[in-house]
Amino acid sequence: MIRKKVNIGLVGATGLVGQCILRVLAERRFPAGNIKLWASARSAGKKVQYGRKVCRVNEIDPDEFPGCDLIFFAGTEGEKGASRIFSEAAIRAGAVVIDNGSDYRMDQGVPLVVPEVNPGDAFKHKGLIANPNCSTIQMAVALNLIHRKLGLKRIVVSTYQAVSGAGRQGTQTLESEIKDQSFGKAQGKKTRTKKIIFPRQIAQNVIPQISDFSELGFSGEEWKMVKETQKIFHDKKLAVNATTVRVPVDTGHSESVYFETREKAGLGVVEKLLAKSPGVVFSKNSYHTPLEIAGKDEVFVSRLRPDPFDPQAFVMWVAADNLRKGAATNAVQIAELLLK
Amino acid sequence: MIRKKVNIGLVGATGLVGQCILRVLAERRFPAGNIKLWASARSAGKKVQYGRKVCRVNEIDPDEFPGCDLIFFAGTEGEKGASRIFSEAAIRAGAVVIDNGSDYRMDQGVPLVVPEVNPGDAFKHKGLIANPNCSTIQMAVALNLIHRKLGLKRIVVSTYQAVSGAGRQGTQTLESEIKDQSFGKAQGKKTRTKKIIFPRQIAQNVIPQISDFSELGFSGEEWKMVKETQKIFHDKKLAVNATTVRVPVDTGHSESVYFETREKAGLGVVEKLLAKSPGVVFSKNSYHTPLEIAGKDEVFVSRLRPDPFDPQAFVMWVAADNLRKGAATNAVQIAELLLK
Repeated sequence: MIRKKVNIGLVGATGLVGQCILRVLAERRFPAGNIKLWASARSAGKKVQYGRKVCRVNEIDPDEFPGCDLIFFAGTEGEKGASRIFSEAAIRAGAVVIDNGSDYRMDQGVPLVVPEVNPGDAFKHKGLIANPNCSTIQMAVALNLIHRKLGLKRIVVSTYQAVSGAGRQGTQTLESEIKDQSFGKAQGKKTRTKKIIFPRQIAQNVIPQISDFSELGFSGEEWKMVKETQKIFHDKKLAVNATTVRVPVDTGHSESVYFETREKAGLGVVEKLLAKSPGVVFSKNSYHTPLEIAGKDEVFVSRLRPDPFDPQAFVMWVAADNLRKGAATNAVQIAELLLK
Repeated sequence: MIRKKVNIGLVGATGLVGQCILRVLAERRFPAGNIKLWASARSAGKKVQYGRKVCRVNEIDPDEFPGCDLIFFAGTEGEKGASRIFSEAAIRAGAVVIDNGSDYRMDQGVPLVVPEVNPGDAFKHKGLIANPNCSTIQMAVALNLIHRKLGLKRIVVSTYQAVSGAGRQGTQTLESEIKDQSFGKAQGKKTRTKKIIFPRQIAQNVIPQISDFSELGFSGEEWKMVKETQKIFHDKKLAVNATTVRVPVDTGHSESVYFETREKAGLGVVEKLLAKSPGVVFSKNSYHTPLEIAGKDEVFVSRLRPDPFDPQAFVMWVAADNLRKGAATNAVQIAELLLK
C-alpha cells in the first residue's frame, strides 16, 4: 500500500514522543513525501523541526487526513484521546495508523509489533498497528531469542522507569522539584510547576505506581507488561509478574528481569543468544545505566547471571531509551517494515 | 552480663550510622551509663550530640575499651577496617560488640540478628553480634511470619537503595552531582566533590552495582541478601535471587519482593500475617515511598498482590529507613535484647 515516497501525518507533533518520531524519521532517512503535523488546539501554531525544515503544527483536523499514507499517533503512554477519536477517520481516509498509545493494543485484529520480535504481525493489520508499551518493548527485544529457542516459563520483572515516560510534564515535574529542593526553599522561592503529574514527589524518591491500580492490585502499567508480552510472543501461558516503578531519571528505562526457561541451557547458550539477538547490545563484562544509553536506539542487556539455585533460571539488567526504542524508534521501524 | 546502667562505646561516632545510633539510643531511653565515642584520626576532636549532651569524639584507642559493657562498631556497610582491627581487643576488655559492618556476619559462632526474627540467636554470642545488611534486614522483617507459617521456597528481589547506604560520602556525592547538573554547568562552576564513591554518576541515574562483582556475576550486596537471609531464617535451602540497585534517593531503601511459599495460602492469610508481623506497618490500600518513611523505625509493606499465574506466589513492596531499621535501630534493638 505504501509508495516510494510516503506521505506522513503525525498527531501529537509537539510532544516528547512526536518530536522524537520526527528526529528518528530524519536520522533514518525515511522516504517521507509530504508531512503534515498536528497537535491539540493548545499547541497549534507552534513550529517544530523536521530535518533541516521548520514546520508549522496545526490543530488536528480529519479533513486533512486524505493524502496521507501513514499517520502516527504519538500520544503519551496512558493519555487517552486522539487515537480513540481520530484513528477511524484516518483509516477511512486511506492511511495506515501507527498508534503509540495504549487504547487499541489488546484489541483483536490490531497487531502489536516489535519489529525484531514479531515483524510478520505488522502485515495482518486492518488499518491500525499498535506500538507496545515502552517497558514491554525493551523486555521483549531482550528475551526474544531466548523465548524462541528455549521457551520462557516465567518472568519476574521490576522496572526503574524514567519520568519522560510520562511526557514533557513528567520531565518538567522532576526538574522543578529538584530546583525547589536544591535552592528554592533556601531562597523562599518555589518554582511554579504547571501540573504535578506523579502521585507523590519524584525528586529524591521512587514511586511504585505507574497508572491506576486494577485487577489483583497490579497497576495498569504492570498489566501491560503481562498482556502485551503474551501477545507479542503469541504465548498466552507465559507467566509474567511485573512491578513498575518511577525513578528520578529523565530518560532511559531500566529493568531487572528474572526468567525461567522451559528447556535447560547453560549460561553460555543464553549469552550466545543475547549476543546475536537483533536490536540488542549485550555486554558480558560491564553494564549500562540509563544516563549512558539515553539517545541510543538499541536495547542494552548486561549483568546476565544464572540463578544460584535453579539451573533453568537467570536474571539480567535491561536498559533502553524509553522515548526512542520504547516509542519513536519502534514506531518508525514498524513504518519501515511496511515499505518492504 | 549487662548491668542496669550500660556503659557504652561507639566506634565511628561521626558517621551517618554512628550519629543515628546516638539519636536512637537517646530516643529509646536506652539505660546508658558512661558513653565513649571514637572515630578515625581524621575525625577525632569533633563534637557530636547525644541527647542534650555534646560529647567529644576521640581517636580510637583500645586502652579505653575497659569499662565498656557494650561497644557498637558503626562502620558503613562495605567499609572494612575498624571491627577487623579492634573488635577482638573490645571483647577481651569484656565488652559485647555489636558490629554494623559485614566483616564477621557469615562467621560461624557469630549471631546475625534481626530482633523481630531471630532474637534467640543473640544470646549465643561469643562476644560479637553482627547487624545484618540494611537490605537484608527489611526483607527479613517483612517475610518473617510468612516464612515461619507458610515456608518460603524462593525469593526474587530487586532493590532501590538510597545513597546514604554508602555513608556521608554517598549523600554528598548525590548532592553535589545534583547541584552541578542544575546550576553548576550553566554558571561554569563545578561543585568540588571530595570523593566520588559510586561507579557511575548517580544523579538522574540508577546504578545496578553495589560493591564488587564476584561469584556467578552477582555483586557483594546481592550475595549478602542471599546468605544473610538464609542465616537469619536458619534455612540453607531458601532460594534467593537478588538484584541490588542504587537510586538517586537520599534515605530509604525500597524493594520489590516476589516470593513463593511452600504451603498454599490465600491472599487473605498472607495479609493477616503481614498485619500482625512485629516491626511491620502493613498497608492494604496505599503504599509507602522512601521519602515518606525516612526517619521511621518500622518496615513498611504495601502493594501485596497474588501472582496472576501461580497460586503459591506473591509480590510486595517493602520500604524502610536504611540508616534506622537498616542499621542503627536494629543495632540498638539487639542491645535491648541483651538487657533482658
